[in-house]
Amino acid sequence: MTEFKNLDKAPSYAALKAAAPADLHKELNAERILRSNIPVGGGLTFNYACRPVTDASFSLLQKLADEQQVIDKYKMLLSGEVMNTGEKRLVMHQLTRGECAGSVTADGHDLGAFYREQQQRIAAFAEKVHNGTVTGSTGKRFRKVIQIGIGGSDLGPRALYLALKDGAAAAGTLKMEADFISNVDPDDANGVLNGVDYETTLFILVSKSGTTQETLTNQAFVLKKMADAAIPGLTPSRHMVAVTSATSPLAKSDDCLDAFYIDDYIGGRYSSTSAVGGVVLSLAFGPQVFADILAGAHEADLNALNPDITANAALTDALIGVYERMHGFGATAVLPYSQALIRFPAHLQQLDMESNGKSVNRFGEPVDYPTGPIIFGEPGTNGQHSFYQLLHQGTDTIPLQFIGFTANRTGNDLSIDGSTSQRKLNANLTAQMVAFALGKEDDNPNKRFAGNRYSSLIYGKQLTARALGALLAHFENKVMFQGFLWNLNSFDQEGVQLGKVLTKKVLSGDMSPELKAFDSLLNG
Amino acid sequence: MTEFKNLDKAPSYAALKAAAPADLHKELNAERILRSNIPVGGGLTFNYACRPVTDASFSLLQKLADEQQVIDKYKMLLSGEVMNTGEKRLVMHQLTRGECAGSVTADGHDLGAFYREQQQRIAAFAEKVHNGTVTGSTGKRFRKVIQIGIGGSDLGPRALYLALKDGAAAAGTLKMEADFISNVDPDDANGVLNGVDYETTLFILVSKSGTTQETLTNQAFVLKKMADAAIPGLTPSRHMVAVTSATSPLAKSDDCLDAFYIDDYIGGRYSSTSAVGGVVLSLAFGPQVFADILAGAHEADLNALNPDITANAALTDALIGVYERMHGFGATAVLPYSQALIRFPAHLQQLDMESNGKSVNRFGEPVDYPTGPIIFGEPGTNGQHSFYQLLHQGTDTIPLQFIGFTANRTGNDLSIDGSTSQRKLNANLTAQMVAFALGKEDDNPNKRFAGNRYSSLIYGKQLTARALGALLAHFENKVMFQGFLWNLNSFDQEGVQLGKVLTKKVLSGDMSPELKAFDSLLNG
Repeated sequence: MTEFKNLDKAPSYAALKAAAPADLHKELNAERILRSNIPVGGGLTFNYACRPVTDASFSLLQKLADEQQVIDKYKMLLSGEVMNTGEKRLVMHQLTRGECAGSVTADGHDLGAFYREQQQRIAAFAEKVHNGTVTGSTGKRFRKVIQIGIGGSDLGPRALYLALKDGAAAAGTLKMEADFISNVDPDDANGVLNGVDYETTLFILVSKSGTTQETLTNQAFVLKKMADAAIPGLTPSRHMVAVTSATSPLAKSDDCLDAFYIDDYIGGRYSSTSAVGGVVLSLAFGPQVFADILAGAHEADLNALNPDITANAALTDALIGVYERMHGFGATAVLPYSQALIRFPAHLQQLDMESNGKSVNRFGEPVDYPTGPIIFGEPGTNGQHSFYQLLHQGTDTIPLQFIGFTANRTGNDLSIDGSTSQRKLNANLTAQMVAFALGKEDDNPNKRFAGNRYSSLIYGKQLTARALGALLAHFENKVMFQGFLWNLNSFDQEGVQLGKVLTKKVLSGDMSPELKAFDSLLNG
Repeated sequence: MTEFKNLDKAPSYAALKAAAPADLHKELNAERILRSNIPVGGGLTFNYACRPVTDASFSLLQKLADEQQVIDKYKMLLSGEVMNTGEKRLVMHQLTRGECAGSVTADGHDLGAFYREQQQRIAAFAEKVHNGTVTGSTGKRFRKVIQIGIGGSDLGPRALYLALKDGAAAAGTLKMEADFISNVDPDDANGVLNGVDYETTLFILVSKSGTTQETLTNQAFVLKKMADAAIPGLTPSRHMVAVTSATSPLAKSDDCLDAFYIDDYIGGRYSSTSAVGGVVLSLAFGPQVFADILAGAHEADLNALNPDITANAALTDALIGVYERMHGFGATAVLPYSQALIRFPAHLQQLDMESNGKSVNRFGEPVDYPTGPIIFGEPGTNGQHSFYQLLHQGTDTIPLQFIGFTANRTGNDLSIDGSTSQRKLNANLTAQMVAFALGKEDDNPNKRFAGNRYSSLIYGKQLTARALGALLAHFENKVMFQGFLWNLNSFDQEGVQLGKVLTKKVLSGDMSPELKAFDSLLNG
């Protein structure tokens, strides 16, 4: 029977606590680099040569994975057990990209069939928009799509769209430009809507519950702006589709042309491969590109089933991350050497920090070990000219996750001073990994680099749609495994509730003296 | 005589270490909120009611400031002492916005006069571009400006541009759209240049040394793309101006129409108020808007001279930050409730982490206390649906810096369900501050909020250009004061050198086995 127990109850916990982080000055060499590779899926590989594990601690991590029965738990999740215990829900995002453990039936229907049906409906809708069968209400073709959503309805889809946009534009395969409105700050909607041609714009309203304050406010905002534009013959409802649950008020709203469905088993931050990402990505790039993302993610999901950690990239990444937290490292920086991944760190920030930023275990009992780290990051080489100073010479060690590709997305490049820009980009990445790991001695302590600043690398030939799907799933599965190891429920987010309750109090005027005091400052 | 000594040599250090962070459940009330306010400048106010200080520890912080003679050091800096000891340079960014301590002469000339002269040259140039006296080489007016620069030549100017853009567009005062190319990844330049009309575009090449690899590569990239466009009559050099030091190879380059100058006394991350920010901001918004930014920053610089910490917002912010680092808090999140400040956290990330991410003091001796924290952040309310879960209920406490305004930038808003979007935005901000500070008890530990998650608030009526300048200077001065307290040189960045050296080795083929191994992975 699968046992859910806290990390510090695992037999190998004490040995891992006692095992000092690897000294890369002794451990790192070319041979270690060339053997520390695990396939991710989608043509990507995970290299952990510069992470703080020795052969001995790596073996202990395999033991820990076995003791915490993480593969069994993953199988339970895949096969439809109620793994989101707090909210009493299944966790089905992997099923949006394919079956890993057979079909799952709930609420009287086959969930995989339901997700496939939605994907097919989205594909058919996108084709109709692209070929002009579905047009705007004044008869003009849709040229632009704007997604209205926040959190998981924004960060993942936006990161994936930006990852593929410039490459598609360069290849002439960008079917529609996309933009996103998320913040309740009216400057967000005003900025995005500035200069928009409503006749040729399709809005996607995304809210699982159909009750998200920001999203409904922004929907009303958009409808008002459309009405203010006073375009003869324009019918706003024919410029809006919804992505929501079948039971939400938006599902049958007169405000929308059509609706595509998700269900309660897809958490917001895990929803990029559901209709939440599917509609905007299929409209922007065509249904096949979205299908390729799903295929890459599915491949990574299948690889994550391997109980041998030397063949399971997501699990190894998760285990080393847990080990790093045991040894006092409080943060992880995500550093893609790919401008296309500019907002991918922001998506991972939500994915990881909202999933595992918890202090109680899945039974609601406090844990007494550190759980999820801070996640932040920017693309390289930009970050090198920004926060890398602290990463190299600051007083705290911050483990790093590099991402790099042999070829760039747009295919366009130029040789300058004997090397292409892509070659320079990757030379920087290689240099940074070794600089962080091995440092440099110097008589001047201000020019000294201690090394042992740990990192890993996910690399591949190119950031294709399939690679992007695998990259996304790698981190989803890493976060899931870390939740299993820490014995957390990675699928709820009770920490966001109190703010919602107090916001309502402020808006209704029913304020405590402290709320009233801050409110008075902000009201000038 | 001003004594530079390590933080732990200050007499009040031990008492501050021993003083436990405030329990806000006991300390926080409306009276504390209403009295914990300090003017920043530019119409902004800093509120520290929810930071972890009691009246007793606040008094100790005043003592610490006095013992570390931080105001004396600030005056030394302002009056032209060599405060960047490692690089043997003056530190003059405050002088770009006005004299705080009289004139400063170096290298045989008055530096303030030099910065003013550059500002006037920029203003005259911008006017000529705006009125059509200076046009593109085919006779068309310039409509767009694209800055090529990285790090400090990118993050600050970009953050300031984005902060003012949508408001200016809504008011009809946006004179030119701006964009930015920074990353050596060719996808960055390809993405920005996609669809650009070269005839009406002016590029600004920004590199103090004139030798930055990324920037020179991107300049060559842009010139090649312009040549490839084969536009009859187009002369690329008439579409490019430089911002550089007078001694750099770019200063008299035939590639450029004109050049505007900075000097070695303006560090990259402190250069937004020099020509580095001045050219793009004056072109985008007009010279008066840039002058307003400088005026706000100058006001904050003057306020930072006050030795009484109850009247010096930047110094109080700095002191509390140092206290938080003493007590084990490893990061600070910057959370602007203003979509316009979307990239301001990324600028502060560089400003802070590159300045104080150091392990040796200004004499090159190791320090044995934690220095600069991790800085990260995203605008609210977006962050609430992302990483706030960890901020509320994670195992580590992360102090927060909120920023908010009574009115939005674009002036356009709408009342929905009884409140405007701006009102909802600020209700969320008020709610979050109180939720973080006071938490909430609950029988279900998963729904429990411990509180004592510390935060401060910078607030004002609206994010005007003047307020934006003050906000920028507040953080610059905070970082400077923290450097004085920790006894660091906040103005060098030796931690970025090793990567540059190893990158050259990779590109030249002169690689260690470890470099070679990683290089082979990335080359497919």
